[in-house]
Amino acid sequence: MTSALSPTLQLATDLIRCRSVTPEDDGCQEMMIKRLEAIGFKTERLRFGEVDNFWSIREGSDGASGPILAFAGHTDVVPTGPEANWNNPPFEPQIIDGMLHGRGAADMKGSLASMVIACENFIAQHPDHKGRIAFLITSDEEGPSINGTVKVVEWLEARNTKMTWCIVGEPSSTKVVGDVIKNGRRGSLGGILKVKGIQGHVAYPHLADNPIHKLAPALTELAAAHWDNGNEFFPATSFQVSNINGGTGATNVIPGEVEVVFNFRFSTELTDQILRERTEAILNKHQLTYELQWVLSGQPFLTPRGDLVNAVVAAIKTETGLDTELSTSGGTSDGRFIAPTGAQVVELGPINATIHKVNECISADDLNKLTAIYERTLKTLLA
Amino acid sequence: MTSALSPTLQLATDLIRCRSVTPEDDGCQEMMIKRLEAIGFKTERLRFGEVDNFWSIREGSDGASGPILAFAGHTDVVPTGPEANWNNPPFEPQIIDGMLHGRGAADMKGSLASMVIACENFIAQHPDHKGRIAFLITSDEEGPSINGTVKVVEWLEARNTKMTWCIVGEPSSTKVVGDVIKNGRRGSLGGILKVKGIQGHVAYPHLADNPIHKLAPALTELAAAHWDNGNEFFPATSFQVSNINGGTGATNVIPGEVEVVFNFRFSTELTDQILRERTEAILNKHQLTYELQWVLSGQPFLTPRGDLVNAVVAAIKTETGLDTELSTSGGTSDGRFIAPTGAQVVELGPINATIHKVNECISADDLNKLTAIYERTLKTLLA
Repeated sequence: MTSALSPTLQLATDLIRCRSVTPEDDGCQEMMIKRLEAIGFKTERLRFGEVDNFWSIREGSDGASGPILAFAGHTDVVPTGPEANWNNPPFEPQIIDGMLHGRGAADMKGSLASMVIACENFIAQHPDHKGRIAFLITSDEEGPSINGTVKVVEWLEARNTKMTWCIVGEPSSTKVVGDVIKNGRRGSLGGILKVKGIQGHVAYPHLADNPIHKLAPALTELAAAHWDNGNEFFPATSFQVSNINGGTGATNVIPGEVEVVFNFRFSTELTDQILRERTEAILNKHQLTYELQWVLSGQPFLTPRGDLVNAVVAAIKTETGLDTELSTSGGTSDGRFIAPTGAQVVELGPINATIHKVNECISADDLNKLTAIYERTLKTLLA
Repeated sequence: MTSALSPTLQLATDLIRCRSVTPEDDGCQEMMIKRLEAIGFKTERLRFGEVDNFWSIREGSDGASGPILAFAGHTDVVPTGPEANWNNPPFEPQIIDGMLHGRGAADMKGSLASMVIACENFIAQHPDHKGRIAFLITSDEEGPSINGTVKVVEWLEARNTKMTWCIVGEPSSTKVVGDVIKNGRRGSLGGILKVKGIQGHVAYPHLADNPIHKLAPALTELAAAHWDNGNEFFPATSFQVSNINGGTGATNVIPGEVEVVFNFRFSTELTDQILRERTEAILNKHQLTYELQWVLSGQPFLTPRGDLVNAVVAAIKTETGLDTELSTSGGTSDGRFIAPTGAQVVELGPINATIHKVNECISADDLNKLTAIYERTLKTLLA
């Protein structure tokens, strides 16, 4: 590191030096809190189970009644795997050929640094801003996600504190910073289906009842079903079987059971309840004897064009010249826990190409641009 | 054992004492050969690989030109499992409550003893019988069935020696000896099908191609297909999936391949070639990308009513009063190798309830009756 590091890169490297593998925070949050309190934020430290979280908020000229623009993120990172596999030690950040290397550089200590510096810059220029600025930070996003954002949101709801706008720092970009933001995510509903039959010898099929044969037409119908058309923001709901297993291994035995594991990625055009009912109607129509265990991983959410999306899209255009793409693709994020409170939620962060991999890294220039985008969004909404 | 044992039971217990687990013969065949040569049989010992087999034949008044009634069977037995699980040591035969206990009592040393004693009795009364009597004995029936009956039949074909009638001593009976004989067996054709797709993330189904989804409609059609109507002697051909496996175990990954293991049990109304073609036509119609490995375990065969079936049915009626049932059900036997030579083939042996199990046993009275049935069949065909 040289003294030429920008404030964003300096804070990012300081955060990466903390060995904050889920659920450990290892000092990241206190580092952020110290910076935020220096510019007028007030903090509630919220430890749930073994997880450190905090909620920090700064009131502007409206006092306690203004709209809240919250930055949400996590200080925890995924494990590194064998550190010897890294070109550069994962907790000793280095800028090499313009790229900041280290575990969490992209997911999402870079974003956290940009958020803090953006607020410092904004408040220096607009100490009497409108509304309120907040941080919702957890160290449980990469883990079970039980004692993190979920619990902080419950705590806020109990106090009737409502985020108006929320920017989640997840790495949303694909080729250059700001090219894609996520303004929603599909829902994820899983199922574990066990179809029952009667075991027997292949030579005596009349004494057995082959569950694979009974399953096949139902599975055909599920795989061919048209669940919805999606909408402007979501692709059509998708059903996929990930695993199917039946049989004793012997070639002359009709098995007594077959298990199918499947998953829906679903749009806001329908609900998990509708998917459950339609699935079970198909299974019942085919007169299957079955057990079905449902696992709801996340409801879908959508933030259509409005104050937040417009502000972020305009900030990206101004700072980078890009016409950003609104997307709801990809997996789940903590946005799924925040959106149900009524907040507008957008995910905006650096390029996600190296997240969860060895040699995780992001462009140093991109990170400085991300700070500028966050700062301009603050100006648009709260200046 | 007491001196009151019948000749059949005495020979059966002597055979059971030999530890002839496949492919070992452990002296059984020499014991049989000695008895047969004492009554005028001439023997060819045929060792193929590690398997002992023999062909023994006695010419009657017609010399080398008469029809051949052959008794076929095997001296090998399946393993015992832990001998401690047996109530009586498996190679120390005992008659307990009228039941002869020991490994091979039912499958099929009991039958072998009955065949030898039946010949001794018949020849004592009819030394100048018509035609010829033969024994085709292997010690490879319970194993790979490569160096046993198949090779002996090839050897006989090379010499142009044709069996006219063949009685296989497999345990065909279900409740009392003689209640069922097998006058044919279904064919068995197996398949190992691998359907190919493109692996991918459940959240990005457009980048993947789910082989389970592609398989389902083809499997539905295969499971519902009507292959034939069977005929007087065979049930309709049956298709059964024994195993299906696909998936990485992860719930968010679309697998790249799914494997299906299936089996046809088929009648004489169609051929294995027709089944292969019809199966592949269905797979091709559904535009699957697949690999398919076929395993033909046995062609179907049938011996309709004629000299042999009539003689055996009448012998059972005379000796037991039963109207025997002609059946083609059950698994495969060495009859599948003999029938293609043009021989009439019937399987007749004791009750099969305990075969391949611990505490294998048969009724001592049944075994004496079996000797009488074999002897009466000899009389009908060759006296």
